[in-house]
Amino acid sequence: MAGIKSIGILTSGGDAPGMNAAIRAVTRSAIFNGFSVKGIMRGYKGLVFNEIVEFKSQSVSNIIQLGGTILKTARSQEFTTPEGRKAAYDNMVAAGIDALVVIGGDGSLTGAGIFAEEFNVPIVGLPGTIDNDLGGTDSTIGYDTALNTIMEAVDKLRDTASSHERLFFVEVMGHTAGYLALNSAIATGSEAAIIPEMETEVDQLAELINHGFRKSKNSAIVIVAENPKTGGATALAERVKKEFPQYDARVTILGHIQRGGSPTAVDRILASRMGEAAIEAILDGQRNVMIGTMNGKIVYVPFAKAVKHDKGIDRGALDLVKILSI
Amino acid sequence: MAGIKSIGILTSGGDAPGMNAAIRAVTRSAIFNGFSVKGIMRGYKGLVFNEIVEFKSQSVSNIIQLGGTILKTARSQEFTTPEGRKAAYDNMVAAGIDALVVIGGDGSLTGAGIFAEEFNVPIVGLPGTIDNDLGGTDSTIGYDTALNTIMEAVDKLRDTASSHERLFFVEVMGHTAGYLALNSAIATGSEAAIIPEMETEVDQLAELINHGFRKSKNSAIVIVAENPKTGGATALAERVKKEFPQYDARVTILGHIQRGGSPTAVDRILASRMGEAAIEAILDGQRNVMIGTMNGKIVYVPFAKAVKHDKGIDRGALDLVKILSI
Amino acid sequence: MAGIKSIGILTSGGDAPGMNAAIRAVTRSAIFNGFSVKGIMRGYKGLVFNEIVEFKSQSVSNIIQLGGTILKTARSQEFTTPEGRKAAYDNMVAAGIDALVVIGGDGSLTGAGIFAEEFNVPIVGLPGTIDNDLGGTDSTIGYDTALNTIMEAVDKLRDTASSHERLFFVEVMGHTAGYLALNSAIATGSEAAIIPEMETEVDQLAELINHGFRKSKNSAIVIVAENPKTGGATALAERVKKEFPQYDARVTILGHIQRGGSPTAVDRILASRMGEAAIEAILDGQRNVMIGTMNGKIVYVPFAKAVKHDKGIDRGALDLVKILSI
Amino acid sequence: MAGIKSIGILTSGGDAPGMNAAIRAVTRSAIFNGFSVKGIMRGYKGLVFNEIVEFKSQSVSNIIQLGGTILKTARSQEFTTPEGRKAAYDNMVAAGIDALVVIGGDGSLTGAGIFAEEFNVPIVGLPGTIDNDLGGTDSTIGYDTALNTIMEAVDKLRDTASSHERLFFVEVMGHTAGYLALNSAIATGSEAAIIPEMETEVDQLAELINHGFRKSKNSAIVIVAENPKTGGATALAERVKKEFPQYDARVTILGHIQRGGSPTAVDRILASRMGEAAIEAILDGQRNVMIGTMNGKIVYVPFAKAVKHDKGIDRGALDLVKILSI
Repeated sequence: MAGIKSIGILTSGGDAPGMNAAIRAVTRSAIFNGFSVKGIMRGYKGLVFNEIVEFKSQSVSNIIQLGGTILKTARSQEFTTPEGRKAAYDNMVAAGIDALVVIGGDGSLTGAGIFAEEFNVPIVGLPGTIDNDLGGTDSTIGYDTALNTIMEAVDKLRDTASSHERLFFVEVMGHTAGYLALNSAIATGSEAAIIPEMETEVDQLAELINHGFRKSKNSAIVIVAENPKTGGATALAERVKKEFPQYDARVTILGHIQRGGSPTAVDRILASRMGEAAIEAILDGQRNVMIGTMNGKIVYVPFAKAVKHDKGIDRGALDLVKILSI
Repeated sequence: MAGIKSIGILTSGGDAPGMNAAIRAVTRSAIFNGFSVKGIMRGYKGLVFNEIVEFKSQSVSNIIQLGGTILKTARSQEFTTPEGRKAAYDNMVAAGIDALVVIGGDGSLTGAGIFAEEFNVPIVGLPGTIDNDLGGTDSTIGYDTALNTIMEAVDKLRDTASSHERLFFVEVMGHTAGYLALNSAIATGSEAAIIPEMETEVDQLAELINHGFRKSKNSAIVIVAENPKTGGATALAERVKKEFPQYDARVTILGHIQRGGSPTAVDRILASRMGEAAIEAILDGQRNVMIGTMNGKIVYVPFAKAVKHDKGIDRGALDLVKILSI
Repeated sequence: MAGIKSIGILTSGGDAPGMNAAIRAVTRSAIFNGFSVKGIMRGYKGLVFNEIVEFKSQSVSNIIQLGGTILKTARSQEFTTPEGRKAAYDNMVAAGIDALVVIGGDGSLTGAGIFAEEFNVPIVGLPGTIDNDLGGTDSTIGYDTALNTIMEAVDKLRDTASSHERLFFVEVMGHTAGYLALNSAIATGSEAAIIPEMETEVDQLAELINHGFRKSKNSAIVIVAENPKTGGATALAERVKKEFPQYDARVTILGHIQRGGSPTAVDRILASRMGEAAIEAILDGQRNVMIGTMNGKIVYVPFAKAVKHDKGIDRGALDLVKILSI
Repeated sequence: MAGIKSIGILTSGGDAPGMNAAIRAVTRSAIFNGFSVKGIMRGYKGLVFNEIVEFKSQSVSNIIQLGGTILKTARSQEFTTPEGRKAAYDNMVAAGIDALVVIGGDGSLTGAGIFAEEFNVPIVGLPGTIDNDLGGTDSTIGYDTALNTIMEAVDKLRDTASSHERLFFVEVMGHTAGYLALNSAIATGSEAAIIPEMETEVDQLAELINHGFRKSKNSAIVIVAENPKTGGATALAERVKKEFPQYDARVTILGHIQRGGSPTAVDRILASRMGEAAIEAILDGQRNVMIGTMNGKIVYVPFAKAVKHDKGIDRGALDLVKILSI
């Protein structure tokens, strides 16, 4: 786009596997197209406190396979204030940055929208979150890796679960979305998935579990999406233990291992394509859009639409969990 | 479908990760819908030689995570003859099998088409091959796992490659298709992908490699799709060595490790959805179609269309390899 | 040993990766030496309730790589009673079993000792536990796999930890022993290991953590051995949070994933060697000993000595954690 | 040791997983003991061409889990000449380096011995090679990781091998030693291991393979150590194919993937202990010794003894392969 010579890139919010692949793709596509690139450390915080470094092609060598983000990430209290954003803008101008690429989740993109409007800064966003809870895109960078991390952990649990008559409740991440829980339940052949999108009555769950044990199964695994409202796996296990004192019920909370690890092929390719698309978008004069993919094609998603998570859950997938665990 | 009480299932041709997840899904969906299920061993060979076993829900317990196929697979010379197919049909009838679900690649589905026509047998196919070389479906069962297996192997090569000024040629599978080569090149940040869909001149490749080393890279990795016509990685390396005697060029042929391993989440979910869809198709009175997915939705693909691989290659993806390895 | 024609094998207590490799080695070594083999399901419970199956060489095909135990395991209340053990003995005699190989931890070997004495049954034990808390052997079957499972999980945590100024407390298993905690701390470059063998004062820990952050580290990981007495990682984190409100402290309890997974080469080889040695021991007329390895050589360990865990902890290893995390 | 203030560290020869863990341990132990540290790039080449950089504690942050070596490695023609070594010595003196820690295999330690003698330089070596072919130590840094890499690859092959009546010849590294081949054969339950330490007659091998197939196995895997004299797996497969035209024999040469990958817990701990021991050795006034471990204890091994690989092969292990694959 006319006038844009230098692009700043930052990662913000919770980190996700594939962010480094995205940083690499944005940097090299930008350089390939004649832009100079600045790396901004610690997300918006680095913009506010002027932690900005020159990025060359070699700056992103051999990082495509690394989890986390070489740019670091942080939540910035300062950036939520007008003074903070003003300081951020001044540093950006001083560094000669004409446009921003922001990689992060809904909080990060909301912040990007506000900043873009206040200071008329061209910003392109990339969906970087394991939760897959952004609108306008089939998938987010990090989701497939987290799904496989959960799957491998549950495979290990299944080894030991099937050695005893055991009932495992496995809590997985997902923010307010059930994608990780539902799809990891399918991928691991678990007996049930408890997701925020759907009320679960304990008697319903009782039926599900009994269902499994009736089939002479010697173990059952229930994947539970994190959920502050219900208390997640721990609370659920307590309620179920009352109903099934006979089972040896255990709780596993996978926690932050779901955020790390070397990204899968799907996430590396998605991050690479989206990173290049971000630069294409800037060349096309696009601004204040998130790069998404719909049916495998790159699409531009207005920030407002992206942060409104409205993909809903595939009921068929819930049935699939039930049918396949008979 | 009226009259169908018992469903036979077999895996045929080269095995692919996720075949067991598909066997599990077909078996349990069938039982869930009131069908009885027969497992046919060693593909068509088992049909010809009457290796047919009763399948219960428990027959497929705890296999979703296993590579290979518990039904085994084999290439059957006999099934290519009318006598062989007649014997297969007689055994099928004797076992009370009313319909078949065949999991395999183009050879297997072609055989299914002939058999279905000759004896008016309802057959539904599932695309089981790491090569992703079937028409009418976005992906095949096993492709994502093979892609990740290649990626992890090349990540290891990169560790050692980047310790020396080394040039690696890595040969990957793909039959006559370049999907595995092209997408593993993107996922590993390789310097080039050599695929059957596109002529490669050595001077072109020379340019690609020099390009990398000019950027003061200390290593280069070229992913080469297997290709009997050109001789694959070994032949290419010979030609390139003549051009670049200065580089320490090595060849790695990944071979059959690409066929094995525990399936990824993508393949397990795809196999589970397609397996259930196969039973839905039979209930819908569908016959002689392969289950595919287009834009994430289940579709029915006539065998003739499925075996005509015409997806073509995304030129943009080839450019991506080049741009991101600057 | 004269008179012994048939050998029964069982796995008991908590399962450990490599138990299947041990079952395979015992079975095939026994058959190789002319014994017949009986598989006893669900540990001592299967002996009490007569769940005994014939084992052939093929019974243990393709299991060396599987986690868990194909013989299942269970804790048996009945076997702790004289009546239960009498029933077990009667079933054993009825099945024509002349000697037992028991794979398990201290509880299982203690039970073996009592049973052997009461009924004069020749029993050889194999150390199967991830905790490495048995005397007379350098390592137990399952320990190396659990150590690597923890390491890979903490590697993932490090990805995300190093993206924020974060303090992670990771609780690992180990029963009453600190091996897993201490050695995983070394293998992951963690800032500290909290083990049962050593009192930890919070101010000590405070020093350790500040030490790390003083060195401009942006994260710290503390590995904490499970410990009912102290409350493990959760209790420790609470105490530390009071001291360091400035850090974003998180707790991860790895739980039962540490018990599962495909065994490492070390565990498969150890299980294979020990399994063969168990049969050698029976041929040598040994009884009521556990197979151990000392300095890489097979040794026979009286049950009493085996269950008395007295290996102690290498102080040098604790210093190593501290020195290498400066 | 009196007079030593600054320590130079380099990695040389073929890279091995765990070299980075060793670099980290040497660097931090040195700094902990008051030494300054210099990193020498590209092995002896970097000493000859003066590629020497200051190393701080942070220089080795977050590398313990990385394969390869951040110091790079190279074979140096120049260092084999007196002139080259003189240049190396002059650069070393100019950089104020008083002692060297060299991480590498026999070639690298031989070079170290010559250099130490010529210029009276205190040098301590660390055994860094996947081949485990050094004397005076139970294991070398990288061996356990390579063993597990081979194992995981063969596990994948087993998935596909056992789906067909297939005979696989898998060529593994090992230089002139059979450790990797023999122990990976045990760990994977392979039917045979062909190692340089032992002549293999084709009829012997024929017996081994028939043995397997006689037992109604539907596949056989033979691990073959690389061996220029015999031609390795490819030559062997040719000879066997003549004997067994009936089997579908395939060859897989694992190649350089065996050199890469994130190190296992065993290698990270070994590298960490040995790295600290190297600094202890210097403090003890030791020179021109390689750090080894014998029965788990640190030992000092004169270079001459270290490079004389004379550990021999455990015949019992060969029998184990045979007994357990019945």
